[in-house]
Amino acid sequence: MTETLERPTAEPETEPAADDAGKRVAAWLAAFEGALTAGDAEAAALMFDQDSYWRDLLAFTWNIKTVEGPGGVRDMLAATLQHVAPRGFAASEVPSGTPEMTEAWIEFETAAGRGRGHLRLKGDKAWTLLTTLDELKGHEEPQSDRRPMGAEHGADKNRQTWLEKRETVAAELGHTTQPYVVIVGGGQGGIALGARLRQLDVPTIVIERNARPGDSWRNRYKSLCLHDPVWYDHLPYIDFPKNWPVFSPKDKIGDWLEMYTKVMELTYWSSTECKSAKYDEDAGEWIVVVERDGADITLRPKQLVMATGMSGKPNVPTIAGMEGFKGDQHHSSQHPGPDAYAGKKVVVIGSNNSAHDICAALWEAGADVTMVQRSSTHIVRSDSLMDLGLGDLYSERAVASGMTTNKADMTFASLPYRILHEFQIPVYNAIRERDADFYERLAAAGFQLDYGEDDSGLFMKYLRRGSGYYIDVGASELVANGDIKLAPGTVEKLTTASVVLTDGTELPADLVVYATGYGSMNGWAADLISQEVADKVGKVWGLGSDTAKDPGPWEGEQRNMWKPTQQEALWFHGGNLHQSRHYSQYLALQLKARQVGIPTPVYGLEEVHHLS
Amino acid sequence: MTETLERPTAEPETEPAADDAGKRVAAWLAAFEGALTAGDAEAAALMFDQDSYWRDLLAFTWNIKTVEGPGGVRDMLAATLQHVAPRGFAASEVPSGTPEMTEAWIEFETAAGRGRGHLRLKGDKAWTLLTTLDELKGHEEPQSDRRPMGAEHGADKNRQTWLEKRETVAAELGHTTQPYVVIVGGGQGGIALGARLRQLDVPTIVIERNARPGDSWRNRYKSLCLHDPVWYDHLPYIDFPKNWPVFSPKDKIGDWLEMYTKVMELTYWSSTECKSAKYDEDAGEWIVVVERDGADITLRPKQLVMATGMSGKPNVPTIAGMEGFKGDQHHSSQHPGPDAYAGKKVVVIGSNNSAHDICAALWEAGADVTMVQRSSTHIVRSDSLMDLGLGDLYSERAVASGMTTNKADMTFASLPYRILHEFQIPVYNAIRERDADFYERLAAAGFQLDYGEDDSGLFMKYLRRGSGYYIDVGASELVANGDIKLAPGTVEKLTTASVVLTDGTELPADLVVYATGYGSMNGWAADLISQEVADKVGKVWGLGSDTAKDPGPWEGEQRNMWKPTQQEALWFHGGNLHQSRHYSQYLALQLKARQVGIPTPVYGLEEVHHLS
Repeated sequence: MTETLERPTAEPETEPAADDAGKRVAAWLAAFEGALTAGDAEAAALMFDQDSYWRDLLAFTWNIKTVEGPGGVRDMLAATLQHVAPRGFAASEVPSGTPEMTEAWIEFETAAGRGRGHLRLKGDKAWTLLTTLDELKGHEEPQSDRRPMGAEHGADKNRQTWLEKRETVAAELGHTTQPYVVIVGGGQGGIALGARLRQLDVPTIVIERNARPGDSWRNRYKSLCLHDPVWYDHLPYIDFPKNWPVFSPKDKIGDWLEMYTKVMELTYWSSTECKSAKYDEDAGEWIVVVERDGADITLRPKQLVMATGMSGKPNVPTIAGMEGFKGDQHHSSQHPGPDAYAGKKVVVIGSNNSAHDICAALWEAGADVTMVQRSSTHIVRSDSLMDLGLGDLYSERAVASGMTTNKADMTFASLPYRILHEFQIPVYNAIRERDADFYERLAAAGFQLDYGEDDSGLFMKYLRRGSGYYIDVGASELVANGDIKLAPGTVEKLTTASVVLTDGTELPADLVVYATGYGSMNGWAADLISQEVADKVGKVWGLGSDTAKDPGPWEGEQRNMWKPTQQEALWFHGGNLHQSRHYSQYLALQLKARQVGIPTPVYGLEEVHHLS
Repeated sequence: MTETLERPTAEPETEPAADDAGKRVAAWLAAFEGALTAGDAEAAALMFDQDSYWRDLLAFTWNIKTVEGPGGVRDMLAATLQHVAPRGFAASEVPSGTPEMTEAWIEFETAAGRGRGHLRLKGDKAWTLLTTLDELKGHEEPQSDRRPMGAEHGADKNRQTWLEKRETVAAELGHTTQPYVVIVGGGQGGIALGARLRQLDVPTIVIERNARPGDSWRNRYKSLCLHDPVWYDHLPYIDFPKNWPVFSPKDKIGDWLEMYTKVMELTYWSSTECKSAKYDEDAGEWIVVVERDGADITLRPKQLVMATGMSGKPNVPTIAGMEGFKGDQHHSSQHPGPDAYAGKKVVVIGSNNSAHDICAALWEAGADVTMVQRSSTHIVRSDSLMDLGLGDLYSERAVASGMTTNKADMTFASLPYRILHEFQIPVYNAIRERDADFYERLAAAGFQLDYGEDDSGLFMKYLRRGSGYYIDVGASELVANGDIKLAPGTVEKLTTASVVLTDGTELPADLVVYATGYGSMNGWAADLISQEVADKVGKVWGLGSDTAKDPGPWEGEQRNMWKPTQQEALWFHGGNLHQSRHYSQYLALQLKARQVGIPTPVYGLEEVHHLS
């Protein structure tokens, strides 16, 4: 989610021949491989700039980990080099750049698998290195020239057709045979991961309490559309077609997810509630109780994935007088849409994405709407975000220039979180300039704006805290012109028929919507497993940036996401469609490796600093 | 479906620079456009070799038409040049080849639309020219940078969500509003066309008697898989993913079609029977009566498309004694699969694809199976067909070399039917050589083999008659080794418990399967509309090659397929997945042009020579 992929720098007038970039990269990779092969962590470390970042997705660390500077590289290599046995480093396409900054896509292999990555050299030292595990040797996905035949040619008296095999799986898995993985939550995250595990032949059941795949979208307020554009949203294996809307309406994305679940052959238990889970240390497996068709079923998977949404559990504030309020009140996640509220007075508490969307839909339906803004909010107009924030990687323009989804994902992954804000600040400065009139009008209407604590804008807020912003698709205009009334302040209490702020403002209300966000994902673990396990795992999400709602210390990766946690065999998966797509690959490979007994020594297992 | 895209010729040792090919093509196109712009049909015609073919898909003729030699070109241009107003001819990528044979992908435009095509020059004369209409000006499909926004940004008190719009269409179309097109038959053909018409904003209802999209596959015998490989089978807009089986099992392709129908937003009336259709000349519309949910509904579309399958109506032979037979008997299209016939004696009459598949599945289930071969059959092993027959255009190898589905389709379309057999004969000669042992063993078992009347093999048989072959996926081995018994001959009669051949052979039978093929598609028109209209339209399918089941005179295109027929506003659509994909584009454009009143003067409307 960044436009400026290189830091602002004076470019030389003439670009040296690609050959030179190729030579620099080849020389670096050869020396690097030499050091690695010799087991010389120190020599390899010295090939990194003092100011440098090596981001590894499984290939070396069996973790999602960024190490910094020669010291970080040395420690990591000293711990991993012997069992990883990396080799075969080479540029996978012609490198580009200048001596000041050379860039290359690379490939390599390890004892366990094949990897791909990206390298940026400053002079002859590495500035950023990304290494990712792409596939496990001997467990490659059955794609392209490895795809299944489908028809089994020849004659066989014991032939089972595709349908019979599917019916056998449906009848047996979870009943007479046990899944290796249970995924709790069948939204986009659970579905994307389920699809990858199916391709990797890891027996998996996805548990979803709704009736149909996609219902987690369908059941939300009716005007909801994705806030991210289509190029950013592809699922693994099947891209959205070229005629797909830029911003999917919720029911349409729901239908897509349902279709996808079916054709990707997931074992998807809908209308099923996960009631409890407990790790049996001795057996090395989970005891998961689910309720399906009115009966309890106990599953015993080796691995448990929480894919209940990065949003975590709804935060419903405790407000004096709530129980006496005579109107309707519900959390934004429960909001049924505006239809029942035409002509009614509605107070929406909160000023982030959901608050704005709900306010606008209510106004459209003829409700009298007031938004209670409790703290400053970052607003970005969708057009500007698409154009300046995403355009180079995820846009029709990017597609036309040959950018693939995978290359965009890898490019984005190649930017270390430690310095990502430096790339983001200029983008949001440009947006503020472009949309200055818009921001002025909003401020004039009393709306409290911010651009993140360090002015790094929306995507950093998303990575750090997952909240604090609205991608404007129209509601801000209603705020600016007063159609949506604005009430800054803190809620003191509810009366039987109004919301009262601490400054004494009384807002009459037939409906109160708590657009008050969500807790940390380990709250789901507390409910499902135990508070003890939730605390053992600690806070999920955030980078440790020491900004609001993302307390330090610096972690450098999203806490507890897609990687081993302090609770054996417990994993967290989720995020937006981009993350569900890209990081499901690494989570799936970790699970596959464990299923088939490939050793997965984890380097740098995250420590717990916050309980929620 | 051809490997050898160039006729065998001595290639020069050194390939001239692409520049030279580019110059030859540029010169030809410039001169050609000059002649066309000057309205000089004669000058343009003289730019074609005496032995030459211009295949036009709508762009010039609003027809699917191949004209031959300078004379054919002159006549066609004289009739069309003025209203077509072609211009802007240019190579769309760098041409290739030698002076003996230069090839180029081209683009151009006409008054009505934009076109693409392909040109082969022999020296400075055209040998083959393909011109296709790709899109209509002002009615371009909403794809890529024209894709819909989905979310409608801004606020609007009359906003209708995507779901509400879909519900409105479902409630109104066919009831309070009339579709412009009714497609009878919701198999792959009807679905692909329906998807294209939806993208072109042509209100359309697809009528399907089965309960779900895909049931026309699901309801067939259980071991059925597609005989064409995945690369050949993509539907428009959404490709099969890279993990899709080479040969789709029938239930899997059924699921794909069902999901495709849903996400492509077709108005698809399943469990609906089309009972009658009558053209109201005065109103210029069809009166189509369908039965849905037990009630008759009358639809009044302007256009009626028969997409009931290229197979037409099942041919069930009339055989003495049929009515007295005590066992089961049914046409292959009604065969439920082998499960009920373990240990039973089965006689399958016929020796084409369905006969082989059914025999093999019955043998696998433990039935005692005899195949009655009535005439010689062309057998090709699937591997050989994939490798030698399709590999250059539709294979993993083709994908890896950069071949896209569209380019493969266009390449294939660029080969004139008149000379296609010349390209095919060497392919099947190579297959005969490669599989000589296999064919010898089959012949030794008494199986009567052929390779087409002119040894041009499977695909020509398909285009000419749509029958007469089996793509071997295993049954031939059972025939060769006697597991499937072979009875050559003609059926004389059935007794109560056997099939008797004219040579006196008596074959005891608990089940008789009539794998006896299908009639011409206009049989469906006879049933649905009237014998008069069926006769007016005449035989559907075939090229007029004057070979078995494809009587002359030479037509040069598939009779009555995807193009105007002698019955106004009646169209035939179907064929394999490749044809359903590629030709649905041209049928959709013809329907769209008529919907919006773009003049569509048809050049060379086909004459009727055969009634069925």
